[in-house]
Amino acid sequence: MKVIFDTDPGIDDAMALLYLSKLPKVELLGITTVVGNADINGTTRNALFLKERFGISAPVIRGAGETLDGVAKPAADAVHGANGLGDVLLPMIDETTLRPGTASDFIIETLRAHPGEVTIVAVGRMTNLALALRKDPGVAKLANGVVIMGGAFGYKGRLGNVTPAAEANIHGDPVAADEVFGAAWPVVAVGLDVTHEIVLSNDYLAELGRDGGENGQLIADMSAYYARFYGEFLGIDGVVGHDLLAVTYLVHPEWFTTRLGPVRVLTDGIAVGQTIQAVSDRHPAWAGRPAQLVCTDIDAEAVLEHYRTIVTG
Amino acid sequence: MKVIFDTDPGIDDAMALLYLSKLPKVELLGITTVVGNADINGTTRNALFLKERFGISAPVIRGAGETLDGVAKPAADAVHGANGLGDVLLPMIDETTLRPGTASDFIIETLRAHPGEVTIVAVGRMTNLALALRKDPGVAKLANGVVIMGGAFGYKGRLGNVTPAAEANIHGDPVAADEVFGAAWPVVAVGLDVTHEIVLSNDYLAELGRDGGENGQLIADMSAYYARFYGEFLGIDGVVGHDLLAVTYLVHPEWFTTRLGPVRVLTDGIAVGQTIQAVSDRHPAWAGRPAQLVCTDIDAEAVLEHYRTIVTG
Ligand SMILES: [Ca+2]
Ligand SMILES: [Ca+2]
Repeated sequence: MKVIFDTDPGIDDAMALLYLSKLPKVELLGITTVVGNADINGTTRNALFLKERFGISAPVIRGAGETLDGVAKPAADAVHGANGLGDVLLPMIDETTLRPGTASDFIIETLRAHPGEVTIVAVGRMTNLALALRKDPGVAKLANGVVIMGGAFGYKGRLGNVTPAAEANIHGDPVAADEVFGAAWPVVAVGLDVTHEIVLSNDYLAELGRDGGENGQLIADMSAYYARFYGEFLGIDGVVGHDLLAVTYLVHPEWFTTRLGPVRVLTDGIAVGQTIQAVSDRHPAWAGRPAQLVCTDIDAEAVLEHYRTIVTG
Repeated sequence: MKVIFDTDPGIDDAMALLYLSKLPKVELLGITTVVGNADINGTTRNALFLKERFGISAPVIRGAGETLDGVAKPAADAVHGANGLGDVLLPMIDETTLRPGTASDFIIETLRAHPGEVTIVAVGRMTNLALALRKDPGVAKLANGVVIMGGAFGYKGRLGNVTPAAEANIHGDPVAADEVFGAAWPVVAVGLDVTHEIVLSNDYLAELGRDGGENGQLIADMSAYYARFYGEFLGIDGVVGHDLLAVTYLVHPEWFTTRLGPVRVLTDGIAVGQTIQAVSDRHPAWAGRPAQLVCTDIDAEAVLEHYRTIVTG
C-alpha cells in the first residue's frame, strides 16, 4: 500500500507518523508538509526531525506556507507548543536532506508514476492537495483514495473545535477542503465525531513511554504538553489521538462506521469551515458532487489496542 | 400554565393543538398563525377550523404572511397537502370569529398582561415572535419561556430536512429565528434530533382513529396524506410527530435530554437556516448571546404513550 503522508507536525501528527512508519503493509513514498500546528518552516523542520528520529527513508517535501483563502491563521501555541512538538528539545536539523520541489508537484508526480496505487493520508490543512488538483485536475482519478483527518459532522453533538462550527484542519483552509471533497477521488473524512472517542489516557501514554523504546518515550514526552491543554481546557485525562485515526482507517476500515454522500465546506460566514454532508444530491449546492465517506462511529477499544501493539511492537 | 400557541397548521400542528387543548394543566390564551405549511390565509383558516372542531375557546389571531428575510418559500404541498391539512374536506369557516389585530401585537399584550406567566409554544416559522421582539424588546424578559419546534443539531447525523443543513421552520425565516434565539427569554429548541425519534406508526394512528373519538379520527384521516410522504420519500412507516413534541416538553421536560449554550442561525449561504449551538461563548459570533436549551435525546416510548393517553382519554 503506497502512501503519501501530508502533515503539519504537530504532536498527533508525530503519533500518526510513527504508527504509519511501523505498519508492515505500508510503503511510505513521501512526507509533505503544510502550515498548521506551526508555520511552514516549523512543520517542515519537525517533519525532518521525525523522519530522522523514526528512521524513515521516504523524503520530506516542503509544502504550502499560505492557505488558499489568504486568511492567516496562526497556530495556537497552547495546544502543540511554540515549536509544534510540545516544546520538547529538538536537535539541530540538517535541512539539506529536504527533497527539492513543492509538495503539490510531488503529489502530482507520485500519483502519475503509480496510477491507481497511491493513497494520500492528509492530517493537516488541505492546501497541498487542492494545489495539486488546481495544477493538474486529472490526478484525482489516479489516486487510490484520500483519507483525511478533518471536519466534524455533529454525531456526538460536536460540529467544531476552533469554532463552534469548524474543526481546525478544515477551518485552516476551507476553500482547499471544499475543493478536495469535490474532486473525483474517493475521500474518507475521519473527523471529530470519531477522533474524540479515542483518548490516550495519561496512564496509556506512560505505558507507551515505558514499553515503546526511545520513540514511545518521545511520544509520551511530547504528549505531556498536549495533555496539559486537554486537561485544563476540556477536562480530558490524556490526549485525543486525532491524526492517528486517519492511519488506522488505512489498515482497519472495518472498525469505522461510515455514511456516504456529497460533502460541502462553508467558505464564509460565522460557520466558515463547517463540513456538511448531504445524504442525497437533490439540493443544488450538493448536486453533482461525488459521494464521499464520512466516519460516524468507531471501535475505540480496537484502535487503542492496535496503536499500542504497533508502537510498542 | 398560560400558553400562546404559534402555529402554521399543518398536520402535526393539528396533532399538537389537539394534545395541548386536552392537557388539564394548560390554559390556552390564544392561537397565533403564521405562513408556512400553507399561505397565511390557509393556515389561519385551518386554525379557525381546528379551534371550532376541537372546542377551543381561545381566540385565533392572524399573523405574518411574509417572512423577515423577504424570501418567499412556498409550502411543499407534497408534505401537508394543498390545504395544509392533508386535503381532508374542510367545512365553510366563519372568519368573523377571528380576533382582530396582529399576532405580534397579541403576543406583546398577552406577555405584558401576565408578566412571568406565559409560555409561547411556537411550531412554525419564528416570524411573529421576532416581530413582537422588534416592536417591544422588553417583552422577552416577561415571558416564562419559549418552546419551539425547530432546528437540527446533528445528534442523529441530521442537520436538516428541507436542505442538508436546515430544518423547515428555521429555514422558513432564519432571520427571525436568529433573533428569537438571541433574545432575553429562555428558549428550548425541540429539533429534528428528537422529533425524528417519535414515529406515529400507521397502526398507532389507526388506534387513535378508533379510540380517540371524532378528533382522533380527524388526526388519523389527515395523517394518511402525511404518511404517504413519509413512506415514499423517507421509508418511514407512519408519520413523524414534530410539533407535538414541543407540547410534550411543556408538561414533561424530564423526558428530554438537553444541552445548554448560545445558538446562532445561519442567515445566508448554502447552509442558510442551519442552527448551531456553542458550548461556550468564547467565539465572537456566539459571545454575549443567552444560553438556550437544545434537546439532544428523548424518551420516545413515554412520549408516544402519553400522547395516546391524552388524545384518547
Ligand atoms: Ca495535523
Ligand atoms: Ca408547524
